[in-house]
Amino acid sequence: MPLGQGYPLQDCSIARALEVVGDRWTLLVLRDCFLGVHRFADLVAHLDVPRAVLSDRLARLVEAGILERDAAGYRVSEAATALWPALRALAAWGESGQQATGGTVRRFAHADCPAGGEPDTTTDGRCPGCGGVPGPADLLVRPEGGPDVPHRDDPVSRSLRVPHRMLTPLP
Amino acid sequence: MPLGQGYPLQDCSIARALEVVGDRWTLLVLRDCFLGVHRFADLVAHLDVPRAVLSDRLARLVEAGILERDAAGYRVSEAATALWPALRALAAWGESGQQATGGTVRRFAHADCPAGGEPDTTTDGRCPGCGGVPGPADLLVRPEGGPDVPHRDDPVSRSLRVPHRMLTPLP
Repeated sequence: MPLGQGYPLQDCSIARALEVVGDRWTLLVLRDCFLGVHRFADLVAHLDVPRAVLSDRLARLVEAGILERDAAGYRVSEAATALWPALRALAAWGESGQQATGGTVRRFAHADCPAGGEPDTTTDGRCPGCGGVPGPADLLVRPEGGPDVPHRDDPVSRSLRVPHRMLTPLP
Repeated sequence: MPLGQGYPLQDCSIARALEVVGDRWTLLVLRDCFLGVHRFADLVAHLDVPRAVLSDRLARLVEAGILERDAAGYRVSEAATALWPALRALAAWGESGQQATGGTVRRFAHADCPAGGEPDTTTDGRCPGCGGVPGPADLLVRPEGGPDVPHRDDPVSRSLRVPHRMLTPLP
């Protein structure tokens, strides 16, 4: 059942947010961009998304000012880093309790924490070292666990299984 | 472009979460349930959602253990209160910067804060009074602003414009 592009009668900030990011492909594309996937071909390969759908979603995200496009590909705009807490909270819920099915858990560590070390942030994003809430560019993703035989073995998936800095283009 | 019901090759907690809540109607229904809307007829009236779609989404949410159904209607399960940070983060983003279009802003105050008063929690959900992160059942929603002539004037919309406790059935 398709839903129209707007919710003119819904005076609600969640509805407003969903007008822009409210479809599953869009959220998965955004997640990948936050994790450092930035080339069209890599997104196609990693998400198995039809090229036409990906083109459409990327165009909408660029138009909404969430992604920026340059010669190297796509990256999350400065303003859109404010979306990170929502994605992170969704991930935390996906990992919790009954939803977990033995997949990979990603820890988000505070890189360059002024208190030293690289402490894992808590579920609400706070760093136990310095007490701040580091933005996504200051986070190191540490994948843990996951199946013995990974579901996917494409180059993007392999890069994502290694600890890496968020928002930094994958090698 | 419809997306299949699962992402078997996506070893990702966000993908897992989206398998359950990854459609816009589902998220709007959940938002309403968190705000205290709990009757089928009220959800139909408030969301303008086709009855068949609403039935389908409610059934899925009950099956996933996110909503529970009783004689009075639907309510968010204890386990599903863990979804609140994701909804809240989405709302915060919807309210921020360019996404805001002069609609209502909702503040979430810590009811019965042990430090006294009912301080508004911060964007990351923390209470500046006691330093804790109150769950949704301990939050008082305070709508602010919004258009002079509200977009909607149904009874549910009127109830939602008054400060009220989250997860508590609206009158």
